[in-house]
Amino acid sequence: MSTNRLPAQHDDFPAWYVEVVKRAELAEHGPARGSMIIRPHGYAIWELLQRALDDRFKATGHENLYFPLLIPMSLLQKEADHVEGFAPQVAVVTHGGGEKLEDPLAIRPTSEAIIWSTYKRWIQSYRDLPLLYNQWVNVLRWEMRTRLFLRTSEFLWQEGHTAHATSDEAVEESLRMLEVYREVAEDVLAIPVFKGRKTAAERFPGAVETYCIEGLMRDGKSLQCGTSHFLGQNFAKAYDVTFLNADGVAEHAWATSWGFSARMVGAAIMAHGDDAGLRLPPAVAPIQVAIVPIYRSDDERASVMEVAEKLRADLAALGVRVRLDDRDQHRPGYKFAEWELKGVPLRIELGPRDVAAERAVIARRLEGDKVEVALADIASGIPDRLASAQRGLFADALAYRDANTHEITSYDDFASGVEEQGGFWRGAWCGEGSCEAEISAATKATIRFLPTEPTVPGAPCMHCGRPGVEVATWARAY
Amino acid sequence: MSTNRLPAQHDDFPAWYVEVVKRAELAEHGPARGSMIIRPHGYAIWELLQRALDDRFKATGHENLYFPLLIPMSLLQKEADHVEGFAPQVAVVTHGGGEKLEDPLAIRPTSEAIIWSTYKRWIQSYRDLPLLYNQWVNVLRWEMRTRLFLRTSEFLWQEGHTAHATSDEAVEESLRMLEVYREVAEDVLAIPVFKGRKTAAERFPGAVETYCIEGLMRDGKSLQCGTSHFLGQNFAKAYDVTFLNADGVAEHAWATSWGFSARMVGAAIMAHGDDAGLRLPPAVAPIQVAIVPIYRSDDERASVMEVAEKLRADLAALGVRVRLDDRDQHRPGYKFAEWELKGVPLRIELGPRDVAAERAVIARRLEGDKVEVALADIASGIPDRLASAQRGLFADALAYRDANTHEITSYDDFASGVEEQGGFWRGAWCGEGSCEAEISAATKATIRFLPTEPTVPGAPCMHCGRPGVEVATWARAY
Repeated sequence: MSTNRLPAQHDDFPAWYVEVVKRAELAEHGPARGSMIIRPHGYAIWELLQRALDDRFKATGHENLYFPLLIPMSLLQKEADHVEGFAPQVAVVTHGGGEKLEDPLAIRPTSEAIIWSTYKRWIQSYRDLPLLYNQWVNVLRWEMRTRLFLRTSEFLWQEGHTAHATSDEAVEESLRMLEVYREVAEDVLAIPVFKGRKTAAERFPGAVETYCIEGLMRDGKSLQCGTSHFLGQNFAKAYDVTFLNADGVAEHAWATSWGFSARMVGAAIMAHGDDAGLRLPPAVAPIQVAIVPIYRSDDERASVMEVAEKLRADLAALGVRVRLDDRDQHRPGYKFAEWELKGVPLRIELGPRDVAAERAVIARRLEGDKVEVALADIASGIPDRLASAQRGLFADALAYRDANTHEITSYDDFASGVEEQGGFWRGAWCGEGSCEAEISAATKATIRFLPTEPTVPGAPCMHCGRPGVEVATWARAY
Repeated sequence: MSTNRLPAQHDDFPAWYVEVVKRAELAEHGPARGSMIIRPHGYAIWELLQRALDDRFKATGHENLYFPLLIPMSLLQKEADHVEGFAPQVAVVTHGGGEKLEDPLAIRPTSEAIIWSTYKRWIQSYRDLPLLYNQWVNVLRWEMRTRLFLRTSEFLWQEGHTAHATSDEAVEESLRMLEVYREVAEDVLAIPVFKGRKTAAERFPGAVETYCIEGLMRDGKSLQCGTSHFLGQNFAKAYDVTFLNADGVAEHAWATSWGFSARMVGAAIMAHGDDAGLRLPPAVAPIQVAIVPIYRSDDERASVMEVAEKLRADLAALGVRVRLDDRDQHRPGYKFAEWELKGVPLRIELGPRDVAAERAVIARRLEGDKVEVALADIASGIPDRLASAQRGLFADALAYRDANTHEITSYDDFASGVEEQGGFWRGAWCGEGSCEAEISAATKATIRFLPTEPTVPGAPCMHCGRPGVEVATWARAY
């Protein structure tokens, strides 16, 4: 760990982000352009997030499966909007086993094509529906400008792909999974998010509707935190997937797909971090409690370590993810700074005088303060302290978002406000893509979302003055 | 599910395997050559196996991380043996984002190259060691002749990669992970395995020693079930990874790698299956208990389903993976055959007369029999019955292996025996690769393993008559 200070978050957010990711040992660039190595501390956050999502997927009736990495280019090209959206980002395998391939293979940028060409075999009757499947995979979309976790060529995610007998059922499914994403973002990552619906310009290629959750980062930019698509019958038609309904009539199946990726590790950094580094929500903190023993002599070491080890065992028995930092090569101050940088919610400091007085000091990452607690009570109180830290982090982020979410009173106020302060800006929009594009070009902001159900604003479009047909929320975004 | 009988296992093992994989909905071929779609029932087995392995990796001090899928060809080519072994099997990405790449990218066939080129940055001092890391990933090795689960171009596995300060520590680590593999094979998959060491001809490209576990399938062929490699300093030298030891002297680090793949789902099929289909060990059975309600009228359905639903809830509360099969479109007999085919260890049949008599019938997949049990006792007894089925399946497989493991008394007996009966054949070998190759060419058998510690047989080589220097165990293999 470098002992230099981090760049101040407020002065240079991108530099702060890069340094936090590097020094907290979350990730680094790989040798191929746009690739990322996720280090153990970063990967452990993703594993906890995966578990939280996967448990909820299974509780809502989904099963996992696995489709291949490589998709014949000819297969990828059947849904017109889809191929137009993804073809420019595809990495292509042209040689295998020392020979040139007749039909080149795409590394999956997403899996609708291969999945719907397979669902054709799995779906015959309405009794085969719904199919509620998900996969945890790597995908690849060629990127020129990369940023660790947020934008890399290869990334890790889950993609759910469901098939239904009716349009209503499919819409209901896509909104159900959007709610799962909201719950994980807010209850697990402690990031408040708005649920919404994308404009046509921001929609997934091949979707009828793209629903999303959007969160506000501490630089005032919005981050798309997860998307859930209602795909209508587009893929069923492109890949000829029909079923016989209860009346024996053939119909095309209705589809959804939904994805949540490891970029959310980046979201946790940017939504909660401060000038000392990460502040991890306890639910995804690989280490929830770090115990730092303090001693000078061997005698002190022995007595302190005995108490520290018992405390570690007590916490582990309570299901707390605890690390006893017994490294001899570093001084306590170095260790304090390292656990702060790595976002550990609670640090317990224990020295000879503490042991003599049967107490310890708890340093709280969220509040940035220290409290003395009797040793007899310390372990049993930790689960409540972690729950409180989880709530506190969410409350902090919510207060920040509330303070940075604005109703637009005039176009000029919006244009200058989004430039100077960032944040979300909500106002009436005419619904025209051309107007949306003009505003984006002028402000570098995009419509992050419309309400999940269309809402007529009762005011004219803030830009062109035509009648408002949608309430649009704008922000600059990642 | 097809209602035709499966091919008899004994008559045509390969055809039986193909049909079981297909009808039990475990997997099917993907559109690109050599690719596989793992269906939910097959993937759920893999998930349970992953959890069993991952828990043990973490209990032995390992952490997970993630290295990129794509490796620059130039980087892959630094360790000479390694590249010679893998280059012919590599799939190559030549185009990305619509442009031709200057340095083509290999899809990882395994990750030693990219990992050791990174460890160079992570290892400076003996205090940085050991690094005990693992990743769960897809890899790709071009294959001409594929077989679902056992041999496909892309496959799912875990690969552990550790770095150590001494040779002894690295050897100890590779044997520790071999023991973890043995434990998972035997205690989780109920497949008895021999631990051993590969000959130079069968060694991993770049390894000093390759340790393995080998299991016997029900067609008399051996399957390599997991490998753990002691890599010496080969990769540290190829990628220039040195550390300062406690005396301040630079040394090359010592390495291990070890892998266990989803081919083990195939092993579970081939080690336990019978003419009715799969027999899954309860530890990896996605459904441990299937409840099949039997009724004719709506009244019967109501009373039977009430009891069945209560039983389902009681079993779920005990942590049993239970499915209540309430599908109306299939008759009970069809459901019985389906759950047998899919390898469900216990099936509970419940009809109106059973409900009236407050009992149910348990059909046991392992024994192939049925027992009547009082409803009041049934749920609480299921965990013991599952544990007993787990032990019974292992005992069956062990008895089969014992009956098919032979000491070689003469070369001719071995050559005819391995041809007619398959099985393991153990005898003295001179240690010469040329002799090994001659025997293999003549018998289609290979040396599956030598003892983990060299053992002098005290007899001449069974083939050439030179002094025996190793005890070799031969078999035909997948």
